[in-house]
Amino acid sequence: MHPIDPNVMNANLPENERRAYLTFAVALTQISRATIAQFRAQGFKTELKPDASFVTEVDLAVERALRAAISQRYPSHGIRGEELAASNDDSEFQWILDPIDGTDNFAHGIPTFGTIIALHYGGEPLVGVLDHPDLQRTYSAARGLGAFCNERKISVVDHADAGGAPIVAVTAPANFMKTNDLVCLTAIQCAFPNTRTYRDCFAHSLALDGSVRAVVDVNLNLWDIAATRVLVEEAGGRFETVRTLAHEGKIFYSVVFGAPDIVAQLLPIVELSPA
Amino acid sequence: MHPIDPNVMNANLPENERRAYLTFAVALTQISRATIAQFRAQGFKTELKPDASFVTEVDLAVERALRAAISQRYPSHGIRGEELAASNDDSEFQWILDPIDGTDNFAHGIPTFGTIIALHYGGEPLVGVLDHPDLQRTYSAARGLGAFCNERKISVVDHADAGGAPIVAVTAPANFMKTNDLVCLTAIQCAFPNTRTYRDCFAHSLALDGSVRAVVDVNLNLWDIAATRVLVEEAGGRFETVRTLAHEGKIFYSVVFGAPDIVAQLLPIVELSPA
Repeated sequence: MHPIDPNVMNANLPENERRAYLTFAVALTQISRATIAQFRAQGFKTELKPDASFVTEVDLAVERALRAAISQRYPSHGIRGEELAASNDDSEFQWILDPIDGTDNFAHGIPTFGTIIALHYGGEPLVGVLDHPDLQRTYSAARGLGAFCNERKISVVDHADAGGAPIVAVTAPANFMKTNDLVCLTAIQCAFPNTRTYRDCFAHSLALDGSVRAVVDVNLNLWDIAATRVLVEEAGGRFETVRTLAHEGKIFYSVVFGAPDIVAQLLPIVELSPA
Repeated sequence: MHPIDPNVMNANLPENERRAYLTFAVALTQISRATIAQFRAQGFKTELKPDASFVTEVDLAVERALRAAISQRYPSHGIRGEELAASNDDSEFQWILDPIDGTDNFAHGIPTFGTIIALHYGGEPLVGVLDHPDLQRTYSAARGLGAFCNERKISVVDHADAGGAPIVAVTAPANFMKTNDLVCLTAIQCAFPNTRTYRDCFAHSLALDGSVRAVVDVNLNLWDIAATRVLVEEAGGRFETVRTLAHEGKIFYSVVFGAPDIVAQLLPIVELSPA
């Protein structure tokens, strides 16, 4: 069991309450999966947003369906999502949603995309869920209750003794290039040549049971990363935000997380442009 | 239907014979899947080979099971696999097997590994199968009969209108670094920043229906690549071997394949060390 920091407000919530939020968050994946399946069966439109990222009708429909379910169950809670305006912005409870993380992959039929569902309480992550419908894998955690892949309890060292050069996942060059950090990517690749690039939250999921030992992901939005910290920490890993950049009213996060020993090796290599 | 080159011996085989080989090759995946499932249930050992690549008991067991089935059905055919010695080396028919491509991924629980089954006739690829048990996807093709993902006929342009920056898959930096070609990787990443790295034949599979538009894969063994050319060409794509390197009695292949327009853009960028 992960130790609870009594200085963090999460710790004030009794276990049965934390467990109830976790159970509800995991149950929400039934709604997102059903919505995704329905749109795939009927076909859907895709368009590029002004920031050159993708959005499909499916993203919007999934976010609407999740918001409706959350609002019905917890009408006073805040909800922030990738696609629609925030509600109840002053609530201590904030649900943060990325209906389809990796829409580019999703639109191209690459099965690693995921739905991200997070609940923060008092500004701290309390519950995190990464759901991969095509892979039949739901990763979930709540503060103090451990991390799971489906029913299996997981740890960042689960595959540590599989051997070989450590596998590190990095995001696509495009994300590094947004801030002219391609040299940083090259430095990571030289130090850890056994890299993978999934460019969606599947990299985050794989770090939770040590399938990849660590992840370097840069220039992310809040909803990309909102579920990951509690998942990583409940799986016994280390999570570091190495840069936050404010740009045009939004904040972009760059993070390194995974097995503590590999994160410690990566941190001095991940030299990003100054904020 | 892909045009058949009458100068290639494959064309001399009647359609029903080509179809019979294809059906048999696809049926072999039931054997590899069953063997993989059995070993996963009982647990298995992993070790590093002298070339620093992985082998598990599962690789060996899958190759033995596939060889037994092929030898029983076609006793005069040759068989070459990653793990065991070649047999019937002088037969016009050569089965080429990689029981688990991406053993590193497999051993770490990453679901993109695959079983590669190829049949070459007269030195030319006739049948190709890439099977991904964890993804429930079997990609298959035979010369002149089209390419398929499970029952769905596929083409390298299937996702061409999904939009956005073209997705290109590259192998891991480790493969480029074997021949000091890291600058080549960086050049590809600059030209195509929306890259993915899977480091197993899943990249090859994704090129077949345009989920990724093209793949650059370098320093491969014969069994890594034996199924891919016929699959790519039957899916309407272009396949180019850009370098063959002889080293310690083995030949290493570097290839670029996928949608013809993207392959044409990649070829001048993929400047590899001279052979």
